[in-house]
Amino acid sequence: LAAAVGGVTYLTYKAFCPRARPDQKAAVNPNIKKNVEKVVDMFDLEDIGDKVAFCRCWRSKNFPYCDGSHTPYNRESGDNVGPVCLSRKK
Amino acid sequence: LAAAVGGVTYLTYKAFCPRARPDQKAAVNPNIKKNVEKVVDMFDLEDIGDKVAFCRCWRSKNFPYCDGSHTPYNRESGDNVGPVCLSRKK
Ligand code: FES
Ligand code: FES
Repeated sequence: LAAAVGGVTYLTYKAFCPRARPDQKAAVNPNIKKNVEKVVDMFDLEDIGDKVAFCRCWRSKNFPYCDGSHTPYNRESGDNVGPVCLSRKK
Repeated sequence: LAAAVGGVTYLTYKAFCPRARPDQKAAVNPNIKKNVEKVVDMFDLEDIGDKVAFCRCWRSKNFPYCDGSHTPYNRESGDNVGPVCLSRKK
């Protein structure tokens, strides 16, 4: 019986625990450009206008820019991430 | 018996699945400034030198700057994250 319980438990764990899945969604980036090996975004400083905010929560619908999606993500997950912001001095 | 298996399975799931824990470490940011509600970094564009790379994997030892820690993080997790890079035109 113990073996049966253990076996069912292990299979259930594999089936339902996201981190135990071999095809798990990755922790930091679940959705963006999952077809590329590494998502790197490059900009010329001269092309940045007065200000820009870059997403670091990987939930923006306008990635690589922050669209405020970090707020519902933080609320739902208990995380505390936010963008990196660059602006020109006034 | 089914109920017993179900019960043990559920308790095991709660005990071992990181995402099922109420006190789980957050998915995107496990360690950086966990005492602040939202980690936002602000820079003046004029203070950026020839180039800068900002970490978006939240594993850098030199956060908010990228120190290459995305590489072991991606390897170990199967994720595909990387920095946002800014540079001046040559
Ligand atoms: S939307 Fe991702 S940091 Fe704001
Ligand atoms: S160290 Fe985090 S993106 Fe490079």
